[in-house]
Amino acid sequence: MDEEFNREDRLLQQSPEEELMARRVISLQNEGVKGAVKLRERREREKSDLFLIEGYRELLRAVDGGMEIERLYTCSELFLGSNEGALIDRAGGEVLECNEAVFRKLSYRDRPDGLLAVAKQRHRKLDELSGSLFVIAEAIEKPGNLGTILRSSDATGVDGVIVVDRCTDVHNPNVVRASVGTLFTIPVVEASSEETLEWLAARNIRTLAATPAAEKSYTEVDMTGPLAIVVGTEQLGLSDKWMEGADLKVRIPMRGVADSLNVAMATTVLMYEALRQRG
Amino acid sequence: MDEEFNREDRLLQQSPEEELMARRVISLQNEGVKGAVKLRERREREKSDLFLIEGYRELLRAVDGGMEIERLYTCSELFLGSNEGALIDRAGGEVLECNEAVFRKLSYRDRPDGLLAVAKQRHRKLDELSGSLFVIAEAIEKPGNLGTILRSSDATGVDGVIVVDRCTDVHNPNVVRASVGTLFTIPVVEASSEETLEWLAARNIRTLAATPAAEKSYTEVDMTGPLAIVVGTEQLGLSDKWMEGADLKVRIPMRGVADSLNVAMATTVLMYEALRQRG
Repeated sequence: MDEEFNREDRLLQQSPEEELMARRVISLQNEGVKGAVKLRERREREKSDLFLIEGYRELLRAVDGGMEIERLYTCSELFLGSNEGALIDRAGGEVLECNEAVFRKLSYRDRPDGLLAVAKQRHRKLDELSGSLFVIAEAIEKPGNLGTILRSSDATGVDGVIVVDRCTDVHNPNVVRASVGTLFTIPVVEASSEETLEWLAARNIRTLAATPAAEKSYTEVDMTGPLAIVVGTEQLGLSDKWMEGADLKVRIPMRGVADSLNVAMATTVLMYEALRQRG
Repeated sequence: MDEEFNREDRLLQQSPEEELMARRVISLQNEGVKGAVKLRERREREKSDLFLIEGYRELLRAVDGGMEIERLYTCSELFLGSNEGALIDRAGGEVLECNEAVFRKLSYRDRPDGLLAVAKQRHRKLDELSGSLFVIAEAIEKPGNLGTILRSSDATGVDGVIVVDRCTDVHNPNVVRASVGTLFTIPVVEASSEETLEWLAARNIRTLAATPAAEKSYTEVDMTGPLAIVVGTEQLGLSDKWMEGADLKVRIPMRGVADSLNVAMATTVLMYEALRQRG
């Protein structure tokens, strides 16, 4: 209350520039600030259909990708470059300049760069996908892994990523972060296994699954036709419904003591082999 | 004080089994507990030449790899399997059974499995390495990335990993964790760039660096001879001294909007291509 009072008081004696600075969000109790922090929780994201996008690169890719920005928290002291102003103008939505203490509270990064948006979630359908190379990620648990899979999918020019029977939702802030915003540049769909299997069958897209039990190495099978690379949870791998029905089963060589690669690594290795074979 | 008194008091009336349970570490103020928590910090690790190994798989690989265990904190309520007892016997060192609250405080994992060791650091020298395929990681910042590079190095059967001009030390608990203990199964050396360059030259090992500026794709160069794959920091890539002197410069195709892969992904893609070419 005191803070509020002092703020109003100061406004009366300040220049227009000082006034603007003084008007900014200076309280952690601000409803917008509290609301944004809550969006780190999945329940809040689902209730509101909103999510967080933090960071210059991520926001740039979101705006380029046509995401709808509802509100933008900025902290100009933390800007790293000189293009932030132009991006803020392009982003649209309500802009709230914060002091550093408030922004650091909002931020979920070690090194915040002064930009954090609240945006509308986008929900694409399977029918919006087209192309011949897809990644299907079943029930990935760690947002960092899902984000890294998206980043490698962007790098390899995959036509779409289908997240089936989701565990981590694609709008988790750490998915946005690990994907470095590529979540907004490649078509991403959340769907059930059942509808995805139907969609694949209708389009004659073969599925490829990696398992240590496979006879052939991943470099020995033909990946040039319509293909979906299917990967499963960190702990358990693919479920039976995906593993047993897979058209191609391949082995990724494991020469050491460990029996598996990190799921994002395995996916990336498979995607780059598909890219190599497809020229 | 009260707690201590009660413990002694209870000992007088308990069965041998209850006695053992009662003797266990029940206080967060225990010096050993405080000392172990401190080992999360690099300074403490360097001062003591000790480090932490948490988790069944990690400890198993450490013991198999001949690491010297000084102390072992256990919490039998958290054990996931039935082989922990045998591993504890093999590990050696002082064993301290903790109650769950104490162990959770010691643990740096979301899902502790009841095993956390304090071990002596191991410092290998370049001269201990032999073989024809190496990874050189320059100044990697994130322990998760370094650990993942180790995990993929194990998987691809690399003969050694050289961490040059280190940023993250290899004994960081998150390196141990992300490597899933493969830190103990492959030869890992920390060295300066200068001594590493000399070592490579003396053995005629060619270096390969990835850069978007390279003409050839990584699949178009010959990786079958003695080779060191060199990768650099997350933010800046390789320093000039490594990039300019590289014998082979290659491009990893980037088909999307992002201009780079995660460093651990890039390293893994290069290692698996080397493995493919080497058959």
